[in-house]
Amino acid sequence: MNEDFIRVTYRIECAGSIEAMAAKIASDQSTGTFTELPGETDAVRKRCAARVETIAPLCDTETPGFPDNEGKGPYHRADVTIAYPLEAIGTDIAALMTIAIGGVFAARGLSGIRVMDIDLPQAWSCHPGPQFGIAGSRRLMGVESGPMIASIIKPSLGLTPEDTAAVVKTLCEAGVDFIKDDEKMMNPGYAPLTARVDAIMPVIKAHAERTGKQVMYAFGISSADPDTMMENHDYVVKNGGNAAVVNINSIGHGGMSFLRKRSALCLHAHRNGWDILTRHPALGMEFRAYQKIWRLLGVDQFQINGIRAKYWEPDESFVKSFHDVMTPIFSKDDRPLPVVCSGQWGGQAVETYERTGRTLDLMYLGGGGIHGHPGGPAAGVRAIRQAWEAAASGQSLEAYAASHPDLAASLEKWG
Amino acid sequence: MNEDFIRVTYRIECAGSIEAMAAKIASDQSTGTFTELPGETDAVRKRCAARVETIAPLCDTETPGFPDNEGKGPYHRADVTIAYPLEAIGTDIAALMTIAIGGVFAARGLSGIRVMDIDLPQAWSCHPGPQFGIAGSRRLMGVESGPMIASIIKPSLGLTPEDTAAVVKTLCEAGVDFIKDDEKMMNPGYAPLTARVDAIMPVIKAHAERTGKQVMYAFGISSADPDTMMENHDYVVKNGGNAAVVNINSIGHGGMSFLRKRSALCLHAHRNGWDILTRHPALGMEFRAYQKIWRLLGVDQFQINGIRAKYWEPDESFVKSFHDVMTPIFSKDDRPLPVVCSGQWGGQAVETYERTGRTLDLMYLGGGGIHGHPGGPAAGVRAIRQAWEAAASGQSLEAYAASHPDLAASLEKWG
Repeated sequence: MNEDFIRVTYRIECAGSIEAMAAKIASDQSTGTFTELPGETDAVRKRCAARVETIAPLCDTETPGFPDNEGKGPYHRADVTIAYPLEAIGTDIAALMTIAIGGVFAARGLSGIRVMDIDLPQAWSCHPGPQFGIAGSRRLMGVESGPMIASIIKPSLGLTPEDTAAVVKTLCEAGVDFIKDDEKMMNPGYAPLTARVDAIMPVIKAHAERTGKQVMYAFGISSADPDTMMENHDYVVKNGGNAAVVNINSIGHGGMSFLRKRSALCLHAHRNGWDILTRHPALGMEFRAYQKIWRLLGVDQFQINGIRAKYWEPDESFVKSFHDVMTPIFSKDDRPLPVVCSGQWGGQAVETYERTGRTLDLMYLGGGGIHGHPGGPAAGVRAIRQAWEAAASGQSLEAYAASHPDLAASLEKWG
Repeated sequence: MNEDFIRVTYRIECAGSIEAMAAKIASDQSTGTFTELPGETDAVRKRCAARVETIAPLCDTETPGFPDNEGKGPYHRADVTIAYPLEAIGTDIAALMTIAIGGVFAARGLSGIRVMDIDLPQAWSCHPGPQFGIAGSRRLMGVESGPMIASIIKPSLGLTPEDTAAVVKTLCEAGVDFIKDDEKMMNPGYAPLTARVDAIMPVIKAHAERTGKQVMYAFGISSADPDTMMENHDYVVKNGGNAAVVNINSIGHGGMSFLRKRSALCLHAHRNGWDILTRHPALGMEFRAYQKIWRLLGVDQFQINGIRAKYWEPDESFVKSFHDVMTPIFSKDDRPLPVVCSGQWGGQAVETYERTGRTLDLMYLGGGGIHGHPGGPAAGVRAIRQAWEAAASGQSLEAYAASHPDLAASLEKWG
């Protein structure tokens, strides 16, 4: 039975009856329209009608999530699960998005609607999922255990390819496992991708020859034109690179699907724009639902902010996101590597470890936290590694810092 | 000067200083980060720094647009225009979306942020834009003047290909210029696209042979996989079709870009999911900004609801949308055909005409309003044509209905 339906849970808010609204959505999103039609026969309904499965009431609210010009409070709220026949949607992500997600947000009489989760039947395991994921990321970086320590080119924008290569050299020597272009860096006139690859890859290779370690560099290859994106991809591959930053919302499902089928690179996803979907709790989509789509499409590494991020996202939201990406959809291999980032300098390591299930299967990304360390970037990387040693061995940062001056310096600057 | 910048206007709301927030966004989205860095030199800033150009204050509000856990009202509001150097963004839509749109929504301390408009320099005219647009749509449908009258297959989902072909035959004989799959109809098991094409195109062709008029049929070809979408496209072309429904948000920028470059079909855009961006007035994006991106990507016909639509959208919003799509970005040819739809049966024709600049350059799409006419679909189409004759000749529907019984029947049922 479970295999024949896609179940979507919505948090619905409306002035009228929740039951009526749920039924209306199920009808509108499958066989119904605004007036009775002779063609909506029993056979048609049996094949395609969506049905309301459960309604879990929540407390009313006096303030509408978003304005409803026709309604008056109190506004009723509930989590409603609607089952869509697989026969009506199939396994195409565009069909899922249009039938069970997109169209739902247009219904009249709502004052809140948010997709909380999507439960996909086994047929959906046809999607490729991550090519590298956690295990592949470790293999490519040569990091068998422990967190992968990463950094980002700063300033985000404005450096020439030569400037950038110099930063890369510094970061390689500082001992990072991974470096990435800022997500805003793609193919600007003053630092085109090809020129960045030409300048950066020799630094990566020289460091690998000298030390035996190839630092993973993720180049910003995103383009709204999949052909251009593939050219970018191919240039990175041809020059020995093994990773790319992909701005998933900016390229869309089509761009991601196209790339994944042809990709030889480890795909590091940046979700900029996701906040539009989630900043208002009564509107949009939970990360839990959102990330499933992008994992099926093939994200290998997923940026999900971190504890005390510089952005608006509360810590609890990050903790939930971490749990979400670490939960298999169909198998362990469809999990991407969680990338903990934004304002990270090591000071959040112990809390991150304790609140995310004490795993070291993560990438920990410091930008300013490495570049801005008083002892320089190498000290910044050491400080972060020390912070994670403290976390993994159950010690407080302060105690561990007593015998680790790099961590002590970080604590003094940012603690 | 104008040529060197992309200008984005945001409606910003925050408890703190609007000036400080605007400056922070400009910095975060170009050269800055959370801590001072030695690399952010004057040369770097000159090349890439975004700058706040204008701040137009709006009245304060006591209620935050979305929750801001740190702030307290009153919340200040303003329309802020930030200029991004073209040098930093280039002409790629993914770069624009990430730098000037996506990342902005993550800033801490906001209680509202909405993209109001995007002003693009001439360099952006490199994008393809519509292949057919208004003139091409008229040519393909053989409608030299007046509104193009259209209908949609109902029920939305559940009909077999043979059932669908029977509906198409009825609609062709009823005299429509255009028929479309419901946007939710793509490639389901019970009615795959190829089977629909096989069943429908002979009906379209037979009607054309008999009457000399080829009704435009837009097949739902959307897929999140651009390769699959192109196969769908090719199958329609091979069988003599000339149009397709494209669920733009579901395929994303990459899917649309890929399709447009290779397309021989007139692309009819459905924006389902757009409501997420716009239902809360303090969050997301105005249609004015949104539609520019999709027009540059190549939308030929754009569904924009209508007066008294069955969805939540207020009439004023539709009127603005109509104006937006009819306003050239770089030239008249980058305008798509506006598709007025949702709950339309002719009763809105006069008001639509009066409020949208008295143009007949539009498609007017009736679903239930044609299928559900008491006199049958042919009478439904005649009623809609009569309503538009009334509008264009400056008469009221009621007066015109006195001598036009089909319109009179519509008025009696839905008026």
